[in-house]
Amino acid sequence: MPEINRPDVLAEVRSAFERYETALVSNDVAVLDELFWNSPHTLRYGATENLYGYDAIRAFRANRPAAGLERTIRRVVITSYGDAMATANMEFVRGGSQRIGRQSQTWMKTDAGWRVVAAHVSLLDAGAK
Amino acid sequence: MPEINRPDVLAEVRSAFERYETALVSNDVAVLDELFWNSPHTLRYGATENLYGYDAIRAFRANRPAAGLERTIRRVVITSYGDAMATANMEFVRGGSQRIGRQSQTWMKTDAGWRVVAAHVSLLDAGAK
Repeated sequence: MPEINRPDVLAEVRSAFERYETALVSNDVAVLDELFWNSPHTLRYGATENLYGYDAIRAFRANRPAAGLERTIRRVVITSYGDAMATANMEFVRGGSQRIGRQSQTWMKTDAGWRVVAAHVSLLDAGAK
Repeated sequence: MPEINRPDVLAEVRSAFERYETALVSNDVAVLDELFWNSPHTLRYGATENLYGYDAIRAFRANRPAAGLERTIRRVVITSYGDAMATANMEFVRGGSQRIGRQSQTWMKTDAGWRVVAAHVSLLDAGAK
């Protein structure tokens, strides 16, 4: 079984996670593109779209308005598995919204550094069907 | 970098994924409990709740009504990274709902077999803030 939360691995992932968060709220598209794994296997489920493959994710980012991306993190859980895989999960809130957001990422250490291989972002549902 | 989609690893994960899906739609709580990693690190973001730790997830399942869990899978993407980590992402629809559901799981191979270490389930948002 992979070793859980090796301190040096966790530190690397936390650094990559924080770099992503900074890039997200400032809509630094170049860094966001860099931090997703450049692969057709990469996918991202967003609040309002399902994107399959690095190219689809990049196209989405290129067309997204920069406004409204600011958010406040409520809770973060980062866990590493062995020396090359990790998950980062967080709750967040955006100004003007009552709904709690959730962001889940799975990270992999590639030869070029840590990259997001799968992501899922959603707003907590009020119980609607 | 971990080897991607080794056929034997993928086959193991697909088998575990299908076992989970069968257990989910029939509300076989014992199997669902078995297939989540028994750890305080495990977490599950559901459509209407954020659950941290194996015990919270188990308590949620124990109290969930068995009705209404049937669903039809629209698309599945399973990817493995090395020999002990994988992601399984799927879109689904439920009878009576127009909204597309998404389920993301990160799996790890433990000494007891493959287990879900993090999960995120949500309904595609219609664009509401």
